[in-house]
Amino acid sequence: MTNPTAAMLVIGDEILSGRTRDANMHYLAGELTKIGIDLCEVRVVSDDAEAIVAAVQALSGAYDTVFTSGGIGPTHDDITADNIARAFDRPIGVRADARAVLQAHYDRTGLELNEARLRMARIPEGATLIDNPISAAPGFTLENVHVMAGVPAIFQAMVASVLPTLRGGAPLLSQTLQINRGEGDIAKPLSDLAARYPDLSLGSYPFQRDGAYGANIVIRGNDGARVDAAIAELSSLFPA
Amino acid sequence: MTNPTAAMLVIGDEILSGRTRDANMHYLAGELTKIGIDLCEVRVVSDDAEAIVAAVQALSGAYDTVFTSGGIGPTHDDITADNIARAFDRPIGVRADARAVLQAHYDRTGLELNEARLRMARIPEGATLIDNPISAAPGFTLENVHVMAGVPAIFQAMVASVLPTLRGGAPLLSQTLQINRGEGDIAKPLSDLAARYPDLSLGSYPFQRDGAYGANIVIRGNDGARVDAAIAELSSLFPA
Repeated sequence: MTNPTAAMLVIGDEILSGRTRDANMHYLAGELTKIGIDLCEVRVVSDDAEAIVAAVQALSGAYDTVFTSGGIGPTHDDITADNIARAFDRPIGVRADARAVLQAHYDRTGLELNEARLRMARIPEGATLIDNPISAAPGFTLENVHVMAGVPAIFQAMVASVLPTLRGGAPLLSQTLQINRGEGDIAKPLSDLAARYPDLSLGSYPFQRDGAYGANIVIRGNDGARVDAAIAELSSLFPA
Repeated sequence: MTNPTAAMLVIGDEILSGRTRDANMHYLAGELTKIGIDLCEVRVVSDDAEAIVAAVQALSGAYDTVFTSGGIGPTHDDITADNIARAFDRPIGVRADARAVLQAHYDRTGLELNEARLRMARIPEGATLIDNPISAAPGFTLENVHVMAGVPAIFQAMVASVLPTLRGGAPLLSQTLQINRGEGDIAKPLSDLAARYPDLSLGSYPFQRDGAYGANIVIRGNDGARVDAAIAELSSLFPA
């Protein structure tokens, strides 16, 4: 049985202008790998309505699950929720359940649930809410798309809420061997090894340290015994 | 006149599995912003032939310039060059000019230009080489696509070779004001300000520090005087 597939859509001008370095992609990639969901593609688009709609439709159709980050706050540049609704042709408006979550939070903190904050209760019809234990304003799931905040601490909390609801697969196991020789010297035996283990993925990640070349060879697969066997063969080919 | 547009394609299983955190996207985003080229979209795909071909074709057709990173080394998992050739229906083989560059490098370093290393001289017909001052193996430019290495030091050196060959636009100028109030409190006046400056982009990036909420408001545009005017208005709305 093949693993479920996933894609991520990062939404935000600040990533594309180089102002902010995205942290959510790397986090999500690691979490999905642990539970056997294959992250197959990531796209980063700006806070632009057409770009968001096109990317959501493409990714939602191509993969089992889509995760988005960014653009669900109270300010005018937060247009993600409206465009997820557009992508699925759903009405969107302030929803009672989301409003209640926000009202309780602002009652507790003594702040006013003003018009701007109320924007965060705009949820497409048919979506289910994703809990936000940090700042209350919920994310939501519509069809196979999980819409989450861009602030890393909130993104991570929302991922923690969503992952247990998904079907996982066989976790991807990996072992790494560092070989202190140039990639050009190890490429041929490595390629032969890869051909003998078509069920595994062998990646070579070169580095240069103190003027010397080396590579980390990462062997990945769902069957631990096969990964063990391949790494043992690799070690015998290139003794330390 | 609008700025030229660009997209980036990051190629590599290691990014999508969470093993490696991509550094090239953030670097390229910053460099392009400086010279007035708008980075509009980034995609990350795995070392998969169909995925690379589809993404290159889509991005090459939609944007003025495309930059790729990753997958041009000597090992079996480096399949970028062949699939760029496929994307543009060009023949690919070991090219004399690329071979000469490698031969000179390996003569100098005393290493053998073996079959694996020779793979790095596979360049599509009609492409021009991109200089690699670090480890010799060249990148290349085919049509509007610049194909570069994934190792950050080499990627950066290749970007430095390519950027002077591109037409830039008006550099994106930006100013930031930190406001120590929650986004919900500042959203309305900020939205009104954005409406008065439709030629600028106003972004709000919230943070939480020592339990207090705040936001960095970033105002971006190509006209320095307009950015100055907007930031001055913003400062008067929210005195420190």
